[in-house]
Amino acid sequence: MPAVRITLIGAGTIGLSFAALHLGTLEEAELVIYDTRPDIERYIHETLPGYFGGSSSGKDTVSSFISSGRLRIISQLDDAVRNSHIVQEQGPENVPFKQKLWPEIEKHAPPECLFWSSTSGIPASVQSVDMRSPSRLLVVHPYNPPHLMPLIEIVPSPITEARLVEETVEFWKKLGRQPVVLKKEVTGFVANRLAFALLREAVHLVNEGVVSAQELDEVVESSMGPRWAVTGPFKSYHMGGGAGGMGGLLKNIGGTIQACWDDAGMLKMGDGWEKTILQQTTEAYGDVKRDDLEKRDEMTKQVLSAKSRVRARDGSER
Amino acid sequence: MPAVRITLIGAGTIGLSFAALHLGTLEEAELVIYDTRPDIERYIHETLPGYFGGSSSGKDTVSSFISSGRLRIISQLDDAVRNSHIVQEQGPENVPFKQKLWPEIEKHAPPECLFWSSTSGIPASVQSVDMRSPSRLLVVHPYNPPHLMPLIEIVPSPITEARLVEETVEFWKKLGRQPVVLKKEVTGFVANRLAFALLREAVHLVNEGVVSAQELDEVVESSMGPRWAVTGPFKSYHMGGGAGGMGGLLKNIGGTIQACWDDAGMLKMGDGWEKTILQQTTEAYGDVKRDDLEKRDEMTKQVLSAKSRVRARDGSER
Repeated sequence: MPAVRITLIGAGTIGLSFAALHLGTLEEAELVIYDTRPDIERYIHETLPGYFGGSSSGKDTVSSFISSGRLRIISQLDDAVRNSHIVQEQGPENVPFKQKLWPEIEKHAPPECLFWSSTSGIPASVQSVDMRSPSRLLVVHPYNPPHLMPLIEIVPSPITEARLVEETVEFWKKLGRQPVVLKKEVTGFVANRLAFALLREAVHLVNEGVVSAQELDEVVESSMGPRWAVTGPFKSYHMGGGAGGMGGLLKNIGGTIQACWDDAGMLKMGDGWEKTILQQTTEAYGDVKRDDLEKRDEMTKQVLSAKSRVRARDGSER
Repeated sequence: MPAVRITLIGAGTIGLSFAALHLGTLEEAELVIYDTRPDIERYIHETLPGYFGGSSSGKDTVSSFISSGRLRIISQLDDAVRNSHIVQEQGPENVPFKQKLWPEIEKHAPPECLFWSSTSGIPASVQSVDMRSPSRLLVVHPYNPPHLMPLIEIVPSPITEARLVEETVEFWKKLGRQPVVLKKEVTGFVANRLAFALLREAVHLVNEGVVSAQELDEVVESSMGPRWAVTGPFKSYHMGGGAGGMGGLLKNIGGTIQACWDDAGMLKMGDGWEKTILQQTTEAYGDVKRDDLEKRDEMTKQVLSAKSRVRARDGSER
């Protein structure tokens, strides 16, 4: 298989997580990391091994990527993108930065190179205004951390070429990811909008003293978390509606749903709930340590692989 | 260990799921099922085995529960509750029905018997108005199906005796469940309010044509579902906020959160979105078959046991 040459722009948490994903999953990937921080070499040697088992074995893996030429660190933008098939950007979330960056990349990258931004909020149509071919850019928004979480939201601008969207979808499918293409550039995209809608009601219930922040987390971890890991909300309600499916469900509990919506908290940022929430989360969870994140990630991996195992078994049974 | 004698009032889906949980988990449980449907015996012989592996082995298990006296089916209320430690009600969601039922149960049950309603919406303070001792009643609301899902929302009325709440919590902990006590009798309790808040935004995004119902499910199944199965929303955001925790997160993305809240859909029941949603869910998932539910349940079991395994291992490592 020919090498896929990917250039990552920006080596923050998301950049390194993508680096780990690409190097760990695509045997034929050659990766360039572009970042202007002066200590970039040392930083990558210190941080990237953590994604490959940490300590000595992780360090050996990263060293072998570098010595074999599969991973290169380049601090000149033109050199970094010159031979790329894919440029994936995760720089600062700042409109002028991104608007200036893309024309520069466009100048030096091959004409068939895919241009992806990992932004969580600045649409391709805004980022691309100064590009010669703004139809080349699209958003490829991960769910953190991308080396673990399957979702990839693909958000083309209204003028992004359909062919490029298809190529992008194919790439992520090959990596075993779950790409979902959005048909509109909505504020916050889909995953965050959904999560923030639930967060708003969560904040309200804690602020009203119905449950503590930790108890609310326990509710979610023991009910809709595992449920929605398996079947999303529509499928869940459709399956829970008995013979009538979603229609039966709306008929049976539509009144209750509306009553909950009518009673929902519509708090805004700065309404004074922040103090309660910060106090309760800090009391419950303290300072987050590396070990806490590793435990979370290990459990997430096990949950995801339990899903894959059942899915593979079901597939083979059919 | 002395037998725990539990009477289930109502043998619908939730009643049978609880029956399976109690009989399958508590070796010392003696169960009475009370239901007035005329074909109750046949119905239980046909339906309950499905919770114990189905076909012949499930039938054998249920028959052995009956022949050993661990499971009795009684259609006289006074007989059904006379020797109970716990009466757990899952009858019709109908205020007059429940208000009439409890004084009747109270008349015949032992004075120390716990009274639990599995209602998803009628508070104990409303159900108990005609009881001699309304302070005996509390809501014990499961997340469906209760033989699988860990959450138990415990919702006392303002006058429910604290001692009874504690006994109830202990019982569910012993069963390996996750009881969470609500401090107020809010509309819809906590889990459904949270799920409905997300559902509202999900309906909006599908109604606006941003993604299809099935794509929305794919988003949730590959992102916040598995995430929240492991760490609830507050813990997730606290852990995702870097060194600043939840406070750092609100500072960094508070503006984006507010922008999503401002742009959120505030649809109501009957606003005309139902047709789109029903059409898309039916097209995507069709008629729900027993096999679909079994696959969902099997995957849910595997996800939950992956969590338990990691938790047990972490515990032993400490």
